[in-house]
Amino acid sequence: MTTMRPLIFMDPFPRTQAMVLTPETETELRGMGRLATHFGSRAPDDLVESVLDEVAVIIGQTAMDRGRLERAANLKAIINVKANWEPNIDYGYAQARGVHVLSAAPAMAPAVAEFSIGQAINLARGLPRADAAFRIGAERYGIAGNGRAYSLHDAPVGLIGYGNLGRALTPLLRPFTGQIAVHDPFLSDAYLESEGLEPMALDDLLSTSRFVFVLAGATSDNEGFLSADRLATIPDDAGVILASRAEVVDFDALLFEADTGRLRVAIDVFPEEPVPAGSGWRDSANVLFSAHLAGGMEASYARIRAMMIDDVRQILAGLPPMHLQRAEPRAAAMARSR
Amino acid sequence: MTTMRPLIFMDPFPRTQAMVLTPETETELRGMGRLATHFGSRAPDDLVESVLDEVAVIIGQTAMDRGRLERAANLKAIINVKANWEPNIDYGYAQARGVHVLSAAPAMAPAVAEFSIGQAINLARGLPRADAAFRIGAERYGIAGNGRAYSLHDAPVGLIGYGNLGRALTPLLRPFTGQIAVHDPFLSDAYLESEGLEPMALDDLLSTSRFVFVLAGATSDNEGFLSADRLATIPDDAGVILASRAEVVDFDALLFEADTGRLRVAIDVFPEEPVPAGSGWRDSANVLFSAHLAGGMEASYARIRAMMIDDVRQILAGLPPMHLQRAEPRAAAMARSR
Amino acid sequence: MTTMRPLIFMDPFPRTQAMVLTPETETELRGMGRLATHFGSRAPDDLVESVLDEVAVIIGQTAMDRGRLERAANLKAIINVKANWEPNIDYGYAQARGVHVLSAAPAMAPAVAEFSIGQAINLARGLPRADAAFRIGAERYGIAGNGRAYSLHDAPVGLIGYGNLGRALTPLLRPFTGQIAVHDPFLSDAYLESEGLEPMALDDLLSTSRFVFVLAGATSDNEGFLSADRLATIPDDAGVILASRAEVVDFDALLFEADTGRLRVAIDVFPEEPVPAGSGWRDSANVLFSAHLAGGMEASYARIRAMMIDDVRQILAGLPPMHLQRAEPRAAAMARSR
Amino acid sequence: MTTMRPLIFMDPFPRTQAMVLTPETETELRGMGRLATHFGSRAPDDLVESVLDEVAVIIGQTAMDRGRLERAANLKAIINVKANWEPNIDYGYAQARGVHVLSAAPAMAPAVAEFSIGQAINLARGLPRADAAFRIGAERYGIAGNGRAYSLHDAPVGLIGYGNLGRALTPLLRPFTGQIAVHDPFLSDAYLESEGLEPMALDDLLSTSRFVFVLAGATSDNEGFLSADRLATIPDDAGVILASRAEVVDFDALLFEADTGRLRVAIDVFPEEPVPAGSGWRDSANVLFSAHLAGGMEASYARIRAMMIDDVRQILAGLPPMHLQRAEPRAAAMARSR
Repeated sequence: MTTMRPLIFMDPFPRTQAMVLTPETETELRGMGRLATHFGSRAPDDLVESVLDEVAVIIGQTAMDRGRLERAANLKAIINVKANWEPNIDYGYAQARGVHVLSAAPAMAPAVAEFSIGQAINLARGLPRADAAFRIGAERYGIAGNGRAYSLHDAPVGLIGYGNLGRALTPLLRPFTGQIAVHDPFLSDAYLESEGLEPMALDDLLSTSRFVFVLAGATSDNEGFLSADRLATIPDDAGVILASRAEVVDFDALLFEADTGRLRVAIDVFPEEPVPAGSGWRDSANVLFSAHLAGGMEASYARIRAMMIDDVRQILAGLPPMHLQRAEPRAAAMARSR
Repeated sequence: MTTMRPLIFMDPFPRTQAMVLTPETETELRGMGRLATHFGSRAPDDLVESVLDEVAVIIGQTAMDRGRLERAANLKAIINVKANWEPNIDYGYAQARGVHVLSAAPAMAPAVAEFSIGQAINLARGLPRADAAFRIGAERYGIAGNGRAYSLHDAPVGLIGYGNLGRALTPLLRPFTGQIAVHDPFLSDAYLESEGLEPMALDDLLSTSRFVFVLAGATSDNEGFLSADRLATIPDDAGVILASRAEVVDFDALLFEADTGRLRVAIDVFPEEPVPAGSGWRDSANVLFSAHLAGGMEASYARIRAMMIDDVRQILAGLPPMHLQRAEPRAAAMARSR
Repeated sequence: MTTMRPLIFMDPFPRTQAMVLTPETETELRGMGRLATHFGSRAPDDLVESVLDEVAVIIGQTAMDRGRLERAANLKAIINVKANWEPNIDYGYAQARGVHVLSAAPAMAPAVAEFSIGQAINLARGLPRADAAFRIGAERYGIAGNGRAYSLHDAPVGLIGYGNLGRALTPLLRPFTGQIAVHDPFLSDAYLESEGLEPMALDDLLSTSRFVFVLAGATSDNEGFLSADRLATIPDDAGVILASRAEVVDFDALLFEADTGRLRVAIDVFPEEPVPAGSGWRDSANVLFSAHLAGGMEASYARIRAMMIDDVRQILAGLPPMHLQRAEPRAAAMARSR
Repeated sequence: MTTMRPLIFMDPFPRTQAMVLTPETETELRGMGRLATHFGSRAPDDLVESVLDEVAVIIGQTAMDRGRLERAANLKAIINVKANWEPNIDYGYAQARGVHVLSAAPAMAPAVAEFSIGQAINLARGLPRADAAFRIGAERYGIAGNGRAYSLHDAPVGLIGYGNLGRALTPLLRPFTGQIAVHDPFLSDAYLESEGLEPMALDDLLSTSRFVFVLAGATSDNEGFLSADRLATIPDDAGVILASRAEVVDFDALLFEADTGRLRVAIDVFPEEPVPAGSGWRDSANVLFSAHLAGGMEASYARIRAMMIDDVRQILAGLPPMHLQRAEPRAAAMARSR
């Protein structure tokens, strides 16, 4: 009897080959097994069916309902490289089968955290504005130009959500401030305290933070929980950094708070992307915009590839994956992708 | 015999009363002794002479040559609140007399470090540019918009100078990267290694760093040591953050490297301030400008006041000051102020 | 229809009521649901069967084969408070059912890590010996008495195993030394590097470490892997701390290395416990003995109770447990308990 | 004109050549200048006088009164390698001359801190006692043997004194506990808070600490300040580690508290050393004794040599010393050596 080398099936759309299968990555994966790939669209059904029998690891968002999972008798892991959970998998059955369901979300988090710190400093210190003023000769020097500046040092900071993003942001914040409050309804107070954080009810967090980092994922029941009323309780002139999902906030209310000059806001995600050409959003004052640039950069994809290679190697050796995030079936099923 | 309460003399120009003597600060200082003040200009000679006999602590940049120091028999400390050493004091004689000569420079460093991290992220991630693109509808989403983005995470970073600024910046950098090289001709390799840093010759540091932080003070013999030739050795597309003194760099050469698109540059200090209205500097592309805003903000002055109050209290109690920087007579004499 | 409050069944033998159900703990658990308990022995079958139908959480080592798991339709979690995995559960089927299988092992780890640091310093600095010498007037002062002393500061340290114990020990070691090597066949090099550790082959680790911490669990295939030949490669006069399981080492060979004075050894666990009264082990020189005292102290049980309460609350609320260790079915099945 | 290479004079008694002038050290120093040495006793006056004219650096405790300082026109630094300040120098005049007066005390601190942590764990966990019990077959296993054990984890800890020893101990304590209180009358509350410590009045510290680390130096006015009355306020069963100077405590009262079983005590320093052969101290129960072994080990002397070489190089290059401690003239004059 011949033992076949394990089959790795890569179906990563909307991720591209450049993102997830560089030549070096391909060499690594081919060193571990056979490789079948499909790029540019979701893999067609006949291709998927043709690999089911043998496939050991699926890298991508291939639809894997119960029937397909049953037919994939050798399947050990499914690796979602899109970072958000989608309803493409029967999570409960995959767990029952002992199939690892993993997400590359942790690989994006360092870039989002870096972005968030950068925008927080930009809001507090007015750096982009300072450049614009200098270019037109309207700059004022030293403290005269710093009338509205404040600092992240020693500031009370609130994190809404403490998943991958919060975990990546916290070590960057610690050398600035010891006052890090967290609201996350999925985590217990005792756990947050064991992480050196202050668990806080949402309303308290909003009303006491100089900086509010919105890092919560979108679920089936948290749409718009940062409502106009709640946004109104954030202290005057505080900075709000929206870095995870636009659905969790009343987007128009957030822009209104910025337009009136009451809050300083950085926004990377939108209710609709791309934003329509003529959208009035583009004119909002007191907002630092970016076009979903926080996480999706080459450094993040390099991290995805490295985590993926290392965890596939562990899994094919019968060892636990160490880098990628494991699906909590219940939470994965609640997550809203887009 | 009556013991007089110690006399504190405040002569802080160009610092203002708002910067260094808020009502709370005044209450604290008057709790420790008598207070004489002069604001708005350097204190006139007759006022200085009238306090010399009794003064215990001078807060400010009062000229204190040897003769005045000899006449100030009760003087215990001089606190420079301008942050840069000036040639206003006979440093050697003050030391011989056992007079503490102290600088508020450490109080400014956290703000400069925060600014420097912010600009490094701005250069690497193109945040200000992203906002401008979004406002005109020219944004590209996700990795399509991040073609030139890179990250501070795991990047090789070089610090030129490891004084107050370097010491404040290092803890902010550590959660991003373990590769922090330092060039500082005043410090030994063994000392830098004991701080967890990699001592590096200037030329090596320049040619291997993805981010170069220029944090060196200006001295009588380091003008323009970051010459055009040296700037040319910095790797293509690296980020350079100039946060200490413009004199240490060939300023036009630095702008040229930015104009040609070879380097990304953030500049907070200029050879001449204010910059002349029609200066061509203002048009340099690939530069993030700010008008000497890195350190001089209210948070820094609050820190000056807190350090000053605490150290004056220590000194009047015969105890060592703990916060402000002590003058090294030789280094203080070499420093170039402006 | 009445909704019954969830049933928590506690069957913790050999853990006692004092260890896992203080009055405060009972109050907390009764606040979350109904409580059934059995102490002093494993719960009799009829008691177990009588609760199966309703039980939501089992705290203890109740035998839960597939049949019982099938009958326990409401079961959400099994919490092993003995810390070692045992073959009492059908781990694969529990996972398939989505039942959390959790261990209190992380609660014991801080105490074991503290013990291990203490014994490492004792071996290196000769503290117990110094006390004995002083009591009989044979002490020598200062460096004369420190002829054999060495330090954990800046020493090369090797951890064999990086599970709960290694994770708890590492932060205690970091302020002493930057040279922490790890051998753990279950973990990838890239993962260990991401933790700031140096992955190392076992033979290299043994031959280069000044301190060797044996922290590996016993599995079905690692008995005695620290053989006489391997122990012989540890550098002369190094310290070896055995803190996890005696089965992983050739115990007699380890004592021989201590008896000849070649190694300094601390031993907390034995192939047979209690050690027979007349065992020759008790006479071994150059060994610091303790009677399985590293982990099992009141502080550890307090931590078990706190983790258990918090995770039961999460689980009953449909949220993921945050403190206790989740079973890897394959690893749990390999673990050898005693 | 010939420029003579600088003269380094080494007169380190009671330090020996083996401690401060290994062959490697000699090579380094001879690379920087000429070297004159005297070992085995304090250098005779005629030798001292013969080098005064040229000496640039004195390493040792040579008596340097004002007259000698005046005659040593080229002297740049005096390096005390005994670690305690002595009244051998006119500190004020040395400062007036701009002569660096430095102490090797920071080099001893890591070893003392390691010793202190080790003894704290020994007291809390009863490790030496556990070994003795095992050897006579009186051991009890697991929690049965841990009836009196407690942990440094999360314990309230008090440091009396925050000089070199406190600074070296604090990073070792942090991974165990966040509750570190400090009493040091030389330091302001604001400074201690800026170090992340809780300043505390002595009486509060004593009455609330589970572990008391006595790290204070002896001065002309603090003899016996840890009096019997004050020791009586320490909570029952707390651990007291005496690691700096015996003079600061009522030594008999401390032993009495241990003898009665009220406190657990570790003692490394004694009012008289060597302790007389027949001293009753040797019989004290509940004490872990050591014979002034905390700091004086080869690793500490290696650190002295490294710091000394590096700072001599800095000083001869006209740069500030970075490792050794600078004398505060007033504090140095108050220090009581022995």
